[in-house]
Amino acid sequence: MKKLINKPEDVVREELEGIVVAHPDLVKVYFDPNYVVRVDAPIKGKVGLISGGGSGHEPMHGGFVGYGMLDAACPGAVFTSPTPDQMLEATKAVNGGAGVVHIVKNYTGDIMNFEMAADLAKAEGIDVVAVITDDDVAVQDSLYTAGRRGVGSTVLAEKLAGAAAEQKRPLNDVADVVRKVKGWGRTMGMALTSCTVPHVGKPTFDLPEDEMEIGIGIHGEPGRIRMKVKSADEIVEMMMEPIIKDIPYKAGDEVLMFVNGMGGTPLVELYIVYRKAYEIATKNGLKVVRNLIGPYITSLEMAGTSITLLKMDDDLVKLWDFPVKTPGMRWGM
Amino acid sequence: MKKLINKPEDVVREELEGIVVAHPDLVKVYFDPNYVVRVDAPIKGKVGLISGGGSGHEPMHGGFVGYGMLDAACPGAVFTSPTPDQMLEATKAVNGGAGVVHIVKNYTGDIMNFEMAADLAKAEGIDVVAVITDDDVAVQDSLYTAGRRGVGSTVLAEKLAGAAAEQKRPLNDVADVVRKVKGWGRTMGMALTSCTVPHVGKPTFDLPEDEMEIGIGIHGEPGRIRMKVKSADEIVEMMMEPIIKDIPYKAGDEVLMFVNGMGGTPLVELYIVYRKAYEIATKNGLKVVRNLIGPYITSLEMAGTSITLLKMDDDLVKLWDFPVKTPGMRWGM
Repeated sequence: MKKLINKPEDVVREELEGIVVAHPDLVKVYFDPNYVVRVDAPIKGKVGLISGGGSGHEPMHGGFVGYGMLDAACPGAVFTSPTPDQMLEATKAVNGGAGVVHIVKNYTGDIMNFEMAADLAKAEGIDVVAVITDDDVAVQDSLYTAGRRGVGSTVLAEKLAGAAAEQKRPLNDVADVVRKVKGWGRTMGMALTSCTVPHVGKPTFDLPEDEMEIGIGIHGEPGRIRMKVKSADEIVEMMMEPIIKDIPYKAGDEVLMFVNGMGGTPLVELYIVYRKAYEIATKNGLKVVRNLIGPYITSLEMAGTSITLLKMDDDLVKLWDFPVKTPGMRWGM
Repeated sequence: MKKLINKPEDVVREELEGIVVAHPDLVKVYFDPNYVVRVDAPIKGKVGLISGGGSGHEPMHGGFVGYGMLDAACPGAVFTSPTPDQMLEATKAVNGGAGVVHIVKNYTGDIMNFEMAADLAKAEGIDVVAVITDDDVAVQDSLYTAGRRGVGSTVLAEKLAGAAAEQKRPLNDVADVVRKVKGWGRTMGMALTSCTVPHVGKPTFDLPEDEMEIGIGIHGEPGRIRMKVKSADEIVEMMMEPIIKDIPYKAGDEVLMFVNGMGGTPLVELYIVYRKAYEIATKNGLKVVRNLIGPYITSLEMAGTSITLLKMDDDLVKLWDFPVKTPGMRWGM
């Protein structure tokens, strides 16, 4: 295992210590339980927005805390759900009296622990609404999931709902933005290589030097098919076809296209992927009005990509363009 | 070789085609010769700022074209200098009558070809000033270089001089910003794995599963020493020591710290590196007043990192904070 780490058990704590010294203007970090919170939280009268999940997907979620996006993020151990006490403390820390929205990726552990935290927060008088993201069209159930996995559209939900919360929209309106993304977002991923979880020390799965896996999960969960490596254009066709079939869109619809790097894939390859994905979307009558290209929801050092399409309406476009200032996503300020 | 590409010979063209459809609001792309230019170039009375070099280091340089940074970038083939006709056409395209600055990384081919382009541009009546970056403290001469290699501080020079040009400072003042970065910036890199140049098809160098190379160049050029993989903290100590020894700073100086990912290293590891590098800088009396963390000058899918320290003064801090809007770096707008 070759990684720029010290002891495997210290990876998350030391990463958070890096965030502490790197971004004191944007976030505060609390330890035991671990959570990252906006430097100006809680904000009176503003809905608090929280997400969280296993570490190893950086910049998601801790890198998305700040103005116009999340109020707090709860990082679990690598590829492991955070604990209810993390989410409870984060919920209390961002409660400005207007309620708190939990964005939860559809993994059994995440859902269970977020539910427990929401119950505890409600018992303390905080209004909590949870919305689950489950945009991965690759497989119906998976290693840690009943139903579809929550993947790339979670990043988009955090940006869009974060803008809505910043505009001081009420609790249910902010939750509705996440629900809209849940309904309108679809993702498909693939891997050229496995990742290695630090405390495991060996690759999560074996993938021969000439093979790839289509439909992989962000924890290396099995996908749809393993096959010889194809050209980028053929790979993108295989990824876009199930997305296009699944999405509740019609020709003429506007979409945001998000080409994500899994951690070990450089930007030059993501642009080659984007080029073909854009061509296919356009051929299918979709109009790509916004995009995001880069490593935003990663799987440690896995080489691979995922493509997310999200149907956009005028409100979503405005929310997307709204200023954001976080370590991992920033514009307009 | 596992990459998300089609034919190796089409990598650069297809990446540029991706940029065309991804960022039409920011840049225009010309082909044969290839160059990326700001959508609003040339800007009358503004110094034009150009850089370029081999492809494979994305987002540098094409991703840094836009408001507040480069006016144009000339991408060569992967790890291959661009040709003089690319630089000449780019120089003409951004000439707003106030002269053009060429930022040239110190590699023999780049310097020769930029010089030829500058001579041709001068013959057409365009004022051109070239400044060479050579910040890599690892080795004195290298595979493609006489003297030190130009690496991470080139990114910083492009941001800082880009802001100066945007403020309509005159030709020599913009060039002076690059010269200041040349004098005050120092970098050291390391690799855990090799990269593979697409048209070569096999790793640039062999690095056993338990070894790393300290002082590596961004094209996989030999570094200082090859050894067993150490902990992140030990690695960062080995990288910071020659930087601190070399830099023309003293305790109390303010610096920008740039922790760069080489392409295959995920963000979680870069924050662990940043944590230790920050600690060492602070122990040496340096005050880290700005930072940049992420993959900005990459070596295809190489796993590894580089650390750049740049001494800052009040003017550089203001130039750093100036708005920038490019595909690869954006804030303030």
